[in-house]
Amino acid sequence: MIDNKVSQETSQPIAYNPHVSIDCVVFGFDGEKLKILLIERTIREGDGNYSDKKLPGSIIYQDEDLDTAATRVLNELTGLKNIFLHQFHSFGDPKRTSNPRDKNWLEKTTNTKIGRIVTVGYLALIKISRKIIFESENTTARWYDVKSLSNMKLAFDHNQIAEEALKHIRHQVMLQPYMLFELLPRKFTMTQLRNLYDLILETKSDVRNFQKKMLQIDGLEQLDEVQKNVPYRAPRLYRFNKRKAKISKLKPGF
Amino acid sequence: MIDNKVSQETSQPIAYNPHVSIDCVVFGFDGEKLKILLIERTIREGDGNYSDKKLPGSIIYQDEDLDTAATRVLNELTGLKNIFLHQFHSFGDPKRTSNPRDKNWLEKTTNTKIGRIVTVGYLALIKISRKIIFESENTTARWYDVKSLSNMKLAFDHNQIAEEALKHIRHQVMLQPYMLFELLPRKFTMTQLRNLYDLILETKSDVRNFQKKMLQIDGLEQLDEVQKNVPYRAPRLYRFNKRKAKISKLKPGF
Repeated sequence: MIDNKVSQETSQPIAYNPHVSIDCVVFGFDGEKLKILLIERTIREGDGNYSDKKLPGSIIYQDEDLDTAATRVLNELTGLKNIFLHQFHSFGDPKRTSNPRDKNWLEKTTNTKIGRIVTVGYLALIKISRKIIFESENTTARWYDVKSLSNMKLAFDHNQIAEEALKHIRHQVMLQPYMLFELLPRKFTMTQLRNLYDLILETKSDVRNFQKKMLQIDGLEQLDEVQKNVPYRAPRLYRFNKRKAKISKLKPGF
Repeated sequence: MIDNKVSQETSQPIAYNPHVSIDCVVFGFDGEKLKILLIERTIREGDGNYSDKKLPGSIIYQDEDLDTAATRVLNELTGLKNIFLHQFHSFGDPKRTSNPRDKNWLEKTTNTKIGRIVTVGYLALIKISRKIIFESENTTARWYDVKSLSNMKLAFDHNQIAEEALKHIRHQVMLQPYMLFELLPRKFTMTQLRNLYDLILETKSDVRNFQKKMLQIDGLEQLDEVQKNVPYRAPRLYRFNKRKAKISKLKPGF
């Protein structure tokens, strides 16, 4: 009987109640590379220090709803405010906290016994020009090339969470490219747009076809301006005019 | 300092560790109406019984990952097996368990003190012909017209969860209609497809334009068969051939 099973389960020690945390996957684009925002974690081991990287994340407070927790955590760790954080997936593998290094670090920093943690993944695409507090008393945040993730062992299952976030974006961009504009400066060149598109979808678009395809997007406007301070022939600038796009389609998808 | 804050929080009573549950939103289509699968819940109150409806859901076990829990819970409550359950959103409003009726019911059935519960929402679209165990020793499952949800007060925040699931489907169908075919019989008429489309998107499609639009979908095949045992002129049958569709686009989106 399911309820009996559950009640047997609930007579288990505290570990039975998982903790719930938030992890934020924040992407930025510098015009050439897709970047991800990571926090440096330093662990004292023996006489030395071990340090690695993790996603900005933390355990939720007792009275916080998930979206509130995500906004708070990202702000506390990076200073970022007014970011549209989109919940994309929750991760609950009981083994995701099984690495002793992660477990010890958590129990030290939270001063509590940690069983398993179910984490809710949030995603944000931000202009890389956004002001970020990279160094604070407690944390160091940095932008890293997404390509370098494959050579990094992030804390917990954060490699997997970042990979899922990328898959989510890839799929959304495949269906509607609107979200690319979240990552670009307000005015951008067609080359920047193509670089970003190809980075995310891991494609190599033909210059002419790509431009033709993009110019069909409602809201993508060609400006009478060209990029300034460039050594070569200055390319034309474009901007995305949300009001002219089918906004109704923007939010739910991303 | 964030870790201190967290450690202060974690010195809180058990309620600080939320429970984590799964709730499944299962939709079916009977050819005319979009249906949702609900479980009947009966609560003894005083001398009488109060009964209402809820989504199939339960608290996860200590050693279960989220997808496993979703599959188990749906099977235990409805007998359904081998269902593609898609995680669509998690719900963590601290007030979602604040209704005393819900709280008491939970604490009785789980025989444990319940603080807050973060629930992970899963979504499934199934053929309504699927064999379901509607009556078991412990539970009663039923199909209900989705339209009737607005007049039902479901347990917890299940009205909101069902509404979010509908929004998710609407958006996905708007972007790519593939998932409609999960709800239709293997062979279906254009009218069934149009009814379903209009039900989900709350539109009234023009018969001719709709057919034209749908016939552009890769994988939608017109058969040399007509519907049997119908009083009026038998309409032609269609089927969706996944192999001819861009499968790569099917999974991630839904």
